[in-house]
Amino acid sequence: MSTSLDRLAARCAALLGPDAVIGDPVRLRTYECDGLTTHRAAPGLVVLPESAEQVAAIVRACAAEGVPYVARGSGTGLSGGALPRTDGVLIVTSRMRRILEIDIPNQRAVVEPGVINLDVSRAVRPHGYYFAPDPSSQQICSVGGNVAENSGGAHCLKYGFTAHHVLACEVVTPDGEIVQLGEGPGYDLLGVFVGAEGTLGITTKITVKLTRVPETVRTLLAAFDSIEAGGTAVSAIIGAGVVPAAIEMMDALAIEAAEAAVGCGYPDGAGAVLIVELDGPDGEVAHQFDQVERLCRDAGAFEVRVAADDAERALIWTGRKSAFAAVGRISPAYLVQDGVIPRTALPGVLARIDALSAASGVRVANVFHAGDGNLHPLVLFDDAEEGAAERAEEVSGAILDLCVEHGGSITGEHGVGVDKARYMPRMFTAEDLDTMQMVRCGFDPTGLCNPGKVFPTPRLCGEVPGVRKGPHPLVAEGKAELF
Amino acid sequence: MSTSLDRLAARCAALLGPDAVIGDPVRLRTYECDGLTTHRAAPGLVVLPESAEQVAAIVRACAAEGVPYVARGSGTGLSGGALPRTDGVLIVTSRMRRILEIDIPNQRAVVEPGVINLDVSRAVRPHGYYFAPDPSSQQICSVGGNVAENSGGAHCLKYGFTAHHVLACEVVTPDGEIVQLGEGPGYDLLGVFVGAEGTLGITTKITVKLTRVPETVRTLLAAFDSIEAGGTAVSAIIGAGVVPAAIEMMDALAIEAAEAAVGCGYPDGAGAVLIVELDGPDGEVAHQFDQVERLCRDAGAFEVRVAADDAERALIWTGRKSAFAAVGRISPAYLVQDGVIPRTALPGVLARIDALSAASGVRVANVFHAGDGNLHPLVLFDDAEEGAAERAEEVSGAILDLCVEHGGSITGEHGVGVDKARYMPRMFTAEDLDTMQMVRCGFDPTGLCNPGKVFPTPRLCGEVPGVRKGPHPLVAEGKAELF
Repeated sequence: MSTSLDRLAARCAALLGPDAVIGDPVRLRTYECDGLTTHRAAPGLVVLPESAEQVAAIVRACAAEGVPYVARGSGTGLSGGALPRTDGVLIVTSRMRRILEIDIPNQRAVVEPGVINLDVSRAVRPHGYYFAPDPSSQQICSVGGNVAENSGGAHCLKYGFTAHHVLACEVVTPDGEIVQLGEGPGYDLLGVFVGAEGTLGITTKITVKLTRVPETVRTLLAAFDSIEAGGTAVSAIIGAGVVPAAIEMMDALAIEAAEAAVGCGYPDGAGAVLIVELDGPDGEVAHQFDQVERLCRDAGAFEVRVAADDAERALIWTGRKSAFAAVGRISPAYLVQDGVIPRTALPGVLARIDALSAASGVRVANVFHAGDGNLHPLVLFDDAEEGAAERAEEVSGAILDLCVEHGGSITGEHGVGVDKARYMPRMFTAEDLDTMQMVRCGFDPTGLCNPGKVFPTPRLCGEVPGVRKGPHPLVAEGKAELF
Repeated sequence: MSTSLDRLAARCAALLGPDAVIGDPVRLRTYECDGLTTHRAAPGLVVLPESAEQVAAIVRACAAEGVPYVARGSGTGLSGGALPRTDGVLIVTSRMRRILEIDIPNQRAVVEPGVINLDVSRAVRPHGYYFAPDPSSQQICSVGGNVAENSGGAHCLKYGFTAHHVLACEVVTPDGEIVQLGEGPGYDLLGVFVGAEGTLGITTKITVKLTRVPETVRTLLAAFDSIEAGGTAVSAIIGAGVVPAAIEMMDALAIEAAEAAVGCGYPDGAGAVLIVELDGPDGEVAHQFDQVERLCRDAGAFEVRVAADDAERALIWTGRKSAFAAVGRISPAYLVQDGVIPRTALPGVLARIDALSAASGVRVANVFHAGDGNLHPLVLFDDAEEGAAERAEEVSGAILDLCVEHGGSITGEHGVGVDKARYMPRMFTAEDLDTMQMVRCGFDPTGLCNPGKVFPTPRLCGEVPGVRKGPHPLVAEGKAELF
């Protein structure tokens, strides 16, 4: 441990009490990765604050020592956004788990960042409300992590992402100040903070919007011969003006994996299954559900199963929800990608993923939020086989290229983190990335706040235009005469 | 005209052609204010670009000369966000009115910033879609202006603000670069740009989301003895989980004005009327409409009128839509405010506005988007009477104080502009405002892009932390030892 980390450990122990500071190498290893296990680094020090004031004091201490720091909620992120620094401090929010306020008439709640996503819904369900963002890790992930990653979930087609359900945040800035970001006049700094992957500060209090529990939820499973037919059904449903709570699709290989793992009993011989869920008032749901069923059959569904009750609904979802874990049954290892494409490009892109898979011999199982064009290709490989991981990585990159080529994105809901920073220049020009980094430099001029994430090439904040001296550079370079 | 403006005029004429540059003082007066007519300043120069490249060239020319510039769409803003600078250039987007692309399968369109809001809806209506943001100026206001102000409208309770309907923007930054802001990984710079009131750059291309025209629209008018009873109905409707397309309320004085102006025939003796509009699929609307009608009666409505057809619906809306102009019938002059409060605070705040009005002798008519707590108090005065404008201004300020005191905001949809910059410190701490200005300095270090708007005290960008030299100031000041 370096001297500055030693000093920080002593200071934090004095501030927070000795049991809030972890310096023991064995215990530090617990924190060496988040949900992206291919990247690992044990933190130099772990601290467990209990208040915004403590977080601010830690940040100020890090700033004074010039030591980088990373915030971490439950560590379920899939892009390495909470990957620690061996030369830095990991600020873990697991002791900030209080639900501070529930305001039903105004449909909001105020929570600390360590509060578990599902616990918000549990607390307000007796009043008929829930917290809508539902990442599949919602039983364990934290609201602070949801804010950092702007987390989505199967139901974000209708309900949107975390950004749409956060009304205000109290934030410790990299300057160590406690500020309020929220709705109201001036710049929408809340908007830029949510989804900034922990690079602009640490949230210490979150005001979330509560959503009314729908009167009715109805779910169906439709089986098709091919992904193309399923894609046609998706387009028809959206085109008819229906906004389902969720439309999920799985291809044959994903179905095979789910059957092997949980025996979900999906129809035999399906090239693709579609799960469509509608929720809302009885009248609306009944009307639209009939329409969806008909559109699925028109698109060629050879079987449509309608869940008669909650148990049947859970059974339909079991296959989908187990899909990621289930591929372990058919492959020793896999990479999961998170590309996005325009909904209408689905059939074309999937055909090209098939071709990529055939040409490379690397199997790809597809599970996706079809309604919003968010693909989760599972690229399968055998980690015991030499070069297999590299080939899988190559196919992954090629899939992201396909997404970008079709006007889509390299990530839909998992974030950039350390995992996809290198792909950012495929989507953005140098000028676009520069504009983002100008904002980062505004918040974090010394670059100590979660460094190494999101941006492929960190920009030194000395390069910020604000620092330029003398005449405007366009004049100095003579460019101002050129246009 | 100063020498630098002369040079700019010549340069812009060479670049855009002479008919795209206005320097004649009489013609410049046309542009001396936007919808906030209490603030006026004729621009030093007006230019009318036709492309992003031309906008970028103008911005670079201004930067080279150190001349400030302001962008303007149709000039309908109500907070003076497009107030020109006499020492600066006004960049008017009225020649950028092309709808560049309509993509129905992906429910989006790409438009230039000068396109009129309602023209987007007109263009896509044959396909069954529309552009949801509906400021009352939608027949004339521009989409670029909607982006700058994050405009709302009567239907933003259900459909949200402009920010919720813009998917991407092409932007000319104050550096004169053309960048793309939009969905995807990295910071949500689109979010911070929309609603930044033209202080972070000029949008030159906007990708908007299209919304399906609802199957059914149903509207009712409910009359109550008092604002309190109307407020109770609003809370009951929202509390029941209904999300109406609009809930508008008018008080007795606003009704009186509307009757005098357009003879809308609202029920006699009403202390308040509520207009509730539901839209969506037939099944949903029918079910919820009955519920709303019942809740209104339960809250004490003495009359409920249901519009039987489009003509009756238009009649119900006539009173509300004419309310602002109509107060001219009962008062020589007025100020319109735009405060926001939590929905549940409505009755309390309105009672205190009444008390303020009684104590000061200044009449206040209330018209508001009740569903989202957005008040538009019309503060009436006689501009021929000495001191009356000042007293009206005082009452206006006191109303905004009330809003802030109740956890609300000084503006809901009109923006801060020049009008409310002085109220910003009532809502935000110095640290909060500083954090916003750090972002502004990132985009616009020289402070030439729409200066004097939003912030009460411009921050010199030399004060940006990124410019600090030597040890971290917390260390230098010894504060790093204090925590």
